Amino acid sequence: MKVYEIEHEVLYYEGDMTGKLNLPTILNLAILSSTEQAIDYGVGPEYTHNLGLGWIILQHIIDIKRRPEIGERIKVSTHAKELNPFFCKRDYTFVDAQGIEIIKIDTLYAMIDMTKRKMARIPEDIAAAFDPTIVKKIARQTAPLTMTDDMSSQQQDYRVRFTDIDSNQHVNNSKYLNWTQDILGPEFLLAHEPRHVNIKFEHEVRLGEIVTSRVAVIGNQSRHQIIAGDELAAEASIDWTENQ
Amino acid sequence: MKVYEIEHEVLYYEGDMTGKLNLPTILNLAILSSTEQAIDYGVGPEYTHNLGLGWIILQHIIDIKRRPEIGERIKVSTHAKELNPFFCKRDYTFVDAQGIEIIKIDTLYAMIDMTKRKMARIPEDIAAAFDPTIVKKIARQTAPLTMTDDMSSQQQDYRVRFTDIDSNQHVNNSKYLNWTQDILGPEFLLAHEPRHVNIKFEHEVRLGEIVTSRVAVIGNQSRHQIIAGDELAAEASIDWTENQ
Repeated sequence: MKVYEIEHEVLYYEGDMTGKLNLPTILNLAILSSTEQAIDYGVGPEYTHNLGLGWIILQHIIDIKRRPEIGERIKVSTHAKELNPFFCKRDYTFVDAQGIEIIKIDTLYAMIDMTKRKMARIPEDIAAAFDPTIVKKIARQTAPLTMTDDMSSQQQDYRVRFTDIDSNQHVNNSKYLNWTQDILGPEFLLAHEPRHVNIKFEHEVRLGEIVTSRVAVIGNQSRHQIIAGDELAAEASIDWTENQ
Repeated sequence: MKVYEIEHEVLYYEGDMTGKLNLPTILNLAILSSTEQAIDYGVGPEYTHNLGLGWIILQHIIDIKRRPEIGERIKVSTHAKELNPFFCKRDYTFVDAQGIEIIKIDTLYAMIDMTKRKMARIPEDIAAAFDPTIVKKIARQTAPLTMTDDMSSQQQDYRVRFTDIDSNQHVNNSKYLNWTQDILGPEFLLAHEPRHVNIKFEHEVRLGEIVTSRVAVIGNQSRHQIIAGDELAAEASIDWTENQ
């Protein structure tokens, strides 16, 4: 097991109205750490793309003890925890300047063949580079709580923008979380802190598409769907605590 | 004249489909450098807000020789160039690892009384901290080229999102530039590089509002309006070069 660590200062434009690191950027920083790890080990995006392959994220489970403030220096460490021929489980841990763990993410990855657009075997050299525990089966993550038709829900449309697409030519992962939280509105978002986020990706959304973000709030839990056309693009549930 | 410099590595989530630093984040990095300068000199946002004051940006003129790539280390230096009791002119210079100037921004600031929502005098101690050239008159910047009714134009609506608001409780400056460029669409944005951006802010847009981004393209020049309700919120013109 090889753990990789990056340092980051939370910049003002990564904060939201609360002065804390915004939710989507938590995912960006996580992906930054594992991308830098892969580049450092010689198996970065360029290497995988040359093989016609790419990592895709299937699910994130995020636990937040405390979101760091703008100006705080944090460390994000990551390692590939478990790996089998088709899936990889990765941990991300955010710690503050006092070394206290503030955010933890458990992520499930798969590899796809970029031309055939279907699952591919993870090449052994890439797997080996991260020195994970090789396992037969990777335990499934808990699914997000599902929104059902009997729940009263709200919805809003969002258009995929040019800056939502990253240099991998895909909608950046964090944008789904942006649409997911935005529908809740400022009143809710300023009165609550996200504590547990479970987001599962089902279908990729493309540039220029209009997605519908749906939410049902029950107590301090919100259940979300991101819909593109007739397809469920992502599903999420979030546990919140009320601010004092 | 006191010059302040920050270093920054262009992170993958600050890049767009081209693999280069996206246009809105250029503005974020500029503001980051001057905010850090102000904090370092003891006259940061907290200090000004305690006086009931805040800086506002009236106009940016951005010249781009080259947008840095993801992973590049750049330096952004800034200084308050000229100041009179009501306005401040500030320069931002981006250089690459070879010390070559790649981006230059000329920005006009004013100070507002945050409760009365009108222009205020720049306090002498704040002015003095930056050691600018004190002048009687600050030369006006060239206005952006204006879109006129006879020009054929396109438009699209954008809703102000929660993450568009920064910790100052205002729509982040860079978001206007995001709406400005987004209307041009991926085909245009992938075939052209922005070289000269002139953006002037007229009215503040608020959370939850819907803005209309309008554009008229004439050759390699685009003229833009951001409209909120009946008001012109911002006006911009951009010169582009075609990619080879």
